[in-house]
Amino acid sequence: MAPSLGIAKKFDTNEVVVNNQNITESSHDFLYHFGLDRDLDDIQERFCDVKFVCCGGSPKRMGHYAEIFAKEMNYDPPTDLSKSDRYCLFKTGKVLWINHGIGGPSLSVMLNEAIKLLHYANCTNVCFIRLGTSGGIGVEPGTVIISSGALNGELKQEYTQWIMGKKVTRPCFVDEGLRTELIDIANSINIPQCSGLTLCADDFYEGQARLDGAFCDYSSEDKFEFLKELVKKGVRNFEMESTCFTALTARANIRAAVCCVALLNRLNGDQVNLDKDTYHEYEMRPFKLVTSLLKKNLENI
Amino acid sequence: MAPSLGIAKKFDTNEVVVNNQNITESSHDFLYHFGLDRDLDDIQERFCDVKFVCCGGSPKRMGHYAEIFAKEMNYDPPTDLSKSDRYCLFKTGKVLWINHGIGGPSLSVMLNEAIKLLHYANCTNVCFIRLGTSGGIGVEPGTVIISSGALNGELKQEYTQWIMGKKVTRPCFVDEGLRTELIDIANSINIPQCSGLTLCADDFYEGQARLDGAFCDYSSEDKFEFLKELVKKGVRNFEMESTCFTALTARANIRAAVCCVALLNRLNGDQVNLDKDTYHEYEMRPFKLVTSLLKKNLENI
Repeated sequence: MAPSLGIAKKFDTNEVVVNNQNITESSHDFLYHFGLDRDLDDIQERFCDVKFVCCGGSPKRMGHYAEIFAKEMNYDPPTDLSKSDRYCLFKTGKVLWINHGIGGPSLSVMLNEAIKLLHYANCTNVCFIRLGTSGGIGVEPGTVIISSGALNGELKQEYTQWIMGKKVTRPCFVDEGLRTELIDIANSINIPQCSGLTLCADDFYEGQARLDGAFCDYSSEDKFEFLKELVKKGVRNFEMESTCFTALTARANIRAAVCCVALLNRLNGDQVNLDKDTYHEYEMRPFKLVTSLLKKNLENI
Repeated sequence: MAPSLGIAKKFDTNEVVVNNQNITESSHDFLYHFGLDRDLDDIQERFCDVKFVCCGGSPKRMGHYAEIFAKEMNYDPPTDLSKSDRYCLFKTGKVLWINHGIGGPSLSVMLNEAIKLLHYANCTNVCFIRLGTSGGIGVEPGTVIISSGALNGELKQEYTQWIMGKKVTRPCFVDEGLRTELIDIANSINIPQCSGLTLCADDFYEGQARLDGAFCDYSSEDKFEFLKELVKKGVRNFEMESTCFTALTARANIRAAVCCVALLNRLNGDQVNLDKDTYHEYEMRPFKLVTSLLKKNLENI
């Protein structure tokens, strides 16, 4: 296996699996961060046909994506089905659009509740795709990085949890089928892409070796040495959610992909300084790529 | 020192310290997640008088708090000064109200940029207070937990970072003066309070030993054994930001306090099942407590 590839995983059922024996067919559940009640909110009726869940950090961006997708598909304009302001939740046909905020902890809350929601709705063959922005390493701004694997701050393809005082690590899995499909589509619609490893940091500044945070104990030389080491290892971008995303989806038997546009090349600087139009055009690239995949696959379902 | 007490820290300057020699008087900076530009947004003029920064997870709640405080103080209704949808930023007189989302990574991005903002504005004697919701352990729902210290998932009073592949730990400091002032005020205005340690988890479910997440590999007995062990150690609530909050503020020479209302007693269950009125009344308790402190202190500035 090439060093820039992630770990492969095969699934033996097509259901969304909840690995928790306390959750039974009859147990009550209030999905607190969506404000949805298992018994009162017609979960099965409303969500049983979901096949794709598209996720990203910003609530406005996810709402915007959902709106454009609905327009393109001639669906009614979507409304936010979340009853909480923690996360938004739009549905356009068989596709959900949910934001997850910034970082693994925020994402993990959303994933736990989204996975339970899909499980209660008896959904099958669901894919999760994270569409985000990121800091590229050795790639041109505007390139969409299709992750081949996710590394934590320790540079391991693991998601770390602390459960009752003990450290537990979970392996991270990117779905190889989704990854190659995304690469092929990007090439066919002329979206600049690059597939490689993604470093999932727990902060935007020191965790990504930036020189412009409120704190910085290292030198510019240390930073560039580290970035070059990452390039050698096959790392192509930094973001803040991919280990949690690829580990928790795999635990639930869900195939997952991560594609984030690089807003800058970190070998050339730390600040995101794009004019509005360029920013908007870059921000739409993961959307164009992923919705091409959705349209192709939704035809066959 | 009693086991439930945090670590003490003394400051020798009253400025907001940015520990980064790359940031000079003339360096350009775009605070990306607030959408504010150091040179173009009149940072010093608009923010130089800030003395308190009140933080919490939910953007709606922080906006609501800011509005009520402005009304109570006869200030103009505040507008959101953030130009990004990642964080809100309201100013009411000498007080900022900023949301930080869920979890340490999301909070750390906000803190880095808020600290730089206050540093650029030449603010002095600034206090940060986190007002949130939390899961109580062995306390009645509705009790406001005034943190005496913050523990990570390893049960250490440390905030862990991964910087260029290496683990770095930072000590967590709660300001003793602010803590005792909050306790005294709570007692004087009859808000039920309890001061003790806070366990800062990196997720809402497994990290807080809940039985109702999408994943659960432990038993109910394991959970209660862990919760009882925590009670013995002096831990009184779970939330998801206090280690990052108390470590990064201390690094910037900022005094910090954390007070979160308990929405439930985790010894009695895992789900938040409050009726709307009770939820709202509980949610307002940290606000009442902290704004009493603000009013008292703002008179003397």
